[in-house]
Amino acid sequence: MAGPLVSLLTDFGPDVAAAVCRGVIAGICPDARLLDISHSGTKFAVAEAAWRLVFALPYLPVGIHVAVVDPGVGTERRPVGLRAGRGDVLLGPDNGLLLPAAERLGGIVEARLLAERSFFLEPVSSTFHARDVFAPTAAHLASGRPFADVGPVVDPQSLVPLELPRPTIAEDRLETSVAFVDDFGNVYLAGGPDDLAAAVGSLEPGRPFEVELAAAEGRAAVVERTTWQSTFGGVEPGASLLYRSSTGLLAWSDNQASLARRLGLRAGHGVRIRLAT
Amino acid sequence: MAGPLVSLLTDFGPDVAAAVCRGVIAGICPDARLLDISHSGTKFAVAEAAWRLVFALPYLPVGIHVAVVDPGVGTERRPVGLRAGRGDVLLGPDNGLLLPAAERLGGIVEARLLAERSFFLEPVSSTFHARDVFAPTAAHLASGRPFADVGPVVDPQSLVPLELPRPTIAEDRLETSVAFVDDFGNVYLAGGPDDLAAAVGSLEPGRPFEVELAAAEGRAAVVERTTWQSTFGGVEPGASLLYRSSTGLLAWSDNQASLARRLGLRAGHGVRIRLAT
Amino acid sequence: MAGPLVSLLTDFGPDVAAAVCRGVIAGICPDARLLDISHSGTKFAVAEAAWRLVFALPYLPVGIHVAVVDPGVGTERRPVGLRAGRGDVLLGPDNGLLLPAAERLGGIVEARLLAERSFFLEPVSSTFHARDVFAPTAAHLASGRPFADVGPVVDPQSLVPLELPRPTIAEDRLETSVAFVDDFGNVYLAGGPDDLAAAVGSLEPGRPFEVELAAAEGRAAVVERTTWQSTFGGVEPGASLLYRSSTGLLAWSDNQASLARRLGLRAGHGVRIRLAT
Repeated sequence: MAGPLVSLLTDFGPDVAAAVCRGVIAGICPDARLLDISHSGTKFAVAEAAWRLVFALPYLPVGIHVAVVDPGVGTERRPVGLRAGRGDVLLGPDNGLLLPAAERLGGIVEARLLAERSFFLEPVSSTFHARDVFAPTAAHLASGRPFADVGPVVDPQSLVPLELPRPTIAEDRLETSVAFVDDFGNVYLAGGPDDLAAAVGSLEPGRPFEVELAAAEGRAAVVERTTWQSTFGGVEPGASLLYRSSTGLLAWSDNQASLARRLGLRAGHGVRIRLAT
Repeated sequence: MAGPLVSLLTDFGPDVAAAVCRGVIAGICPDARLLDISHSGTKFAVAEAAWRLVFALPYLPVGIHVAVVDPGVGTERRPVGLRAGRGDVLLGPDNGLLLPAAERLGGIVEARLLAERSFFLEPVSSTFHARDVFAPTAAHLASGRPFADVGPVVDPQSLVPLELPRPTIAEDRLETSVAFVDDFGNVYLAGGPDDLAAAVGSLEPGRPFEVELAAAEGRAAVVERTTWQSTFGGVEPGASLLYRSSTGLLAWSDNQASLARRLGLRAGHGVRIRLAT
Repeated sequence: MAGPLVSLLTDFGPDVAAAVCRGVIAGICPDARLLDISHSGTKFAVAEAAWRLVFALPYLPVGIHVAVVDPGVGTERRPVGLRAGRGDVLLGPDNGLLLPAAERLGGIVEARLLAERSFFLEPVSSTFHARDVFAPTAAHLASGRPFADVGPVVDPQSLVPLELPRPTIAEDRLETSVAFVDDFGNVYLAGGPDDLAAAVGSLEPGRPFEVELAAAEGRAAVVERTTWQSTFGGVEPGASLLYRSSTGLLAWSDNQASLARRLGLRAGHGVRIRLAT
């Protein structure tokens, strides 16, 4: 019998902090199956990490998911647990990090404050709640303790919200923004292909588009020509393409190269897409 | 009873893509033992990744090995599975990536197209076959499905070849090239100590050599003096040595420093080794 | 029943060398639970890696811990195993790396030379003892072989020592130094809050301090003002604070930013802390 799955996502980088969390879980629940989602990414970037959970969790089995990107550690921000419709439990700081992924997993069925101190590592530090609060609580849940034991119910409406960017469908264009940039330099945009199609009509491989990048930080606006494609191989290496990414989001990439590096793109950058004339 | 071993090698970097593959496998085959070989390395560099498989797989237990460095994803390139003499199954794109390692594991016993769509994650994306094709097929094999179920046999002769560099034994020198550079900056050369010995005679610790680096990218040829050694400690920190690396390949390193960085060496660089006069 | 825990800490970076060790262990002891502590960090930096073990091992379950930062591989330096009071076995080179962590785990109960060649991968290379000596010996121990089988007892007094920095409590200040810098740029100092309190009196949130960085490498000494805090949130983002870190060491950080990068701090830097006037 395989043990319960416990996943970890943090902004701790490659040093020992994530391993300490793995060790805490392995000590409390020796048969937990540990799965690291990511520990890289921009430190303290809650929205970026929320996208990672959205991209990853639907492909993991039902489990207990610890996510810690926590600029407010040690302050009044609450430690929370969310039970999602699919059956998963997400544990992390109440700063919005968990909400988009919980939505993807069927919505929040129950939210609780993490308050059961017998689940914590004492003394609880003021700077490392992943180790002292979230990981050991996850391990106790993995060991079979019911979710109700973690602490009192909280109203999901009271959770700190997180607004991920959304596109606007205009008359002849999609107004969107960079949602996420992956390790290849692929640029994921707010919205899906349906949003773009609603603005400009059907998306056929080879159809030409103009992508306008808003002026930013003393840089003039840039307009790039590109084409819609169904796969990278539709264009030559180094050429760009718009396509439906594997996440479901609209994406913009250079084939076999980093578009994000070439154009200096980061999350939040404003982007307009229209048919090329 | 330990579960079946499933290894992963990709060029996905530290972001969530590799975790998504781990999640897919853990969902289909909960008792699979997942082992990450590497997700770093140069993106789209098929030969570099092929060396990684050659270096790693002989030291892993017999298992199912997923390797995805896949510049042709979504094009006509075939997804294939190779059963090797040792008993392993290697899954990945038909671009040569799997061939050198399959050779090291006893040669290809059987090659098959991955075509069993009930093993895939549907809808199969055009950009993330690691998630939608290779990982889930591996998980079904790990769950006990026979290799014959993945799809029809293909002729091993029809597989896209990959030529790894080979040395030439000349009258008084070895003509070789940089095969691989590791994270320490150790430089692995095509060929083994026997090849060098065939060119210049016996290799005794302390024997002096000249290494000539071919001119490259507007840079003049460079000649470095070095010595053959049986271990790093044969020279002072910072000094270079030629030696039999732990991979079996001939290697050239600076003791406790990065020779590759000092000399700007990368895979493909031409190298001549002769006895120093 | 969960299998025995085997942890790995190396300076091998993200390439395949650590995976080779995981593979060797998984082959010999299929039910070992592998836990990677870290493979990043400065290469050949024994003291830095010793801190990582000190920070991590107390939070891991009792197990077998392989640690390899080994500038002397292939020389006369001994491969050793240390049984600690808590029940763990630490395996690695006799260069001081293991000693501070063994101390934290209850001290050395028994030290042995790793000399049982039937536990090794033959032929043992001169450059990769993690693969050929340490990992397979760990796997045989994980498989149930008694510690006494690894080789003859050695006198703990004969082990190569490692001196980690210690603070000096002066009349009105603490004389200390940078012990470790983590991935966030948090700076850990030799000594604990008690040492600082012994020098300057009680530590109350908001109490102002001066931190003097010794001149280094042609750089003048720098004096920074900061405050003692109980958590990051006690100061604005970007402002610095002194605090009790989660490791127990005194630490100095910028809230939500990298103090180490801002001030160019690295292990060994001299630091004086006194009350601000």
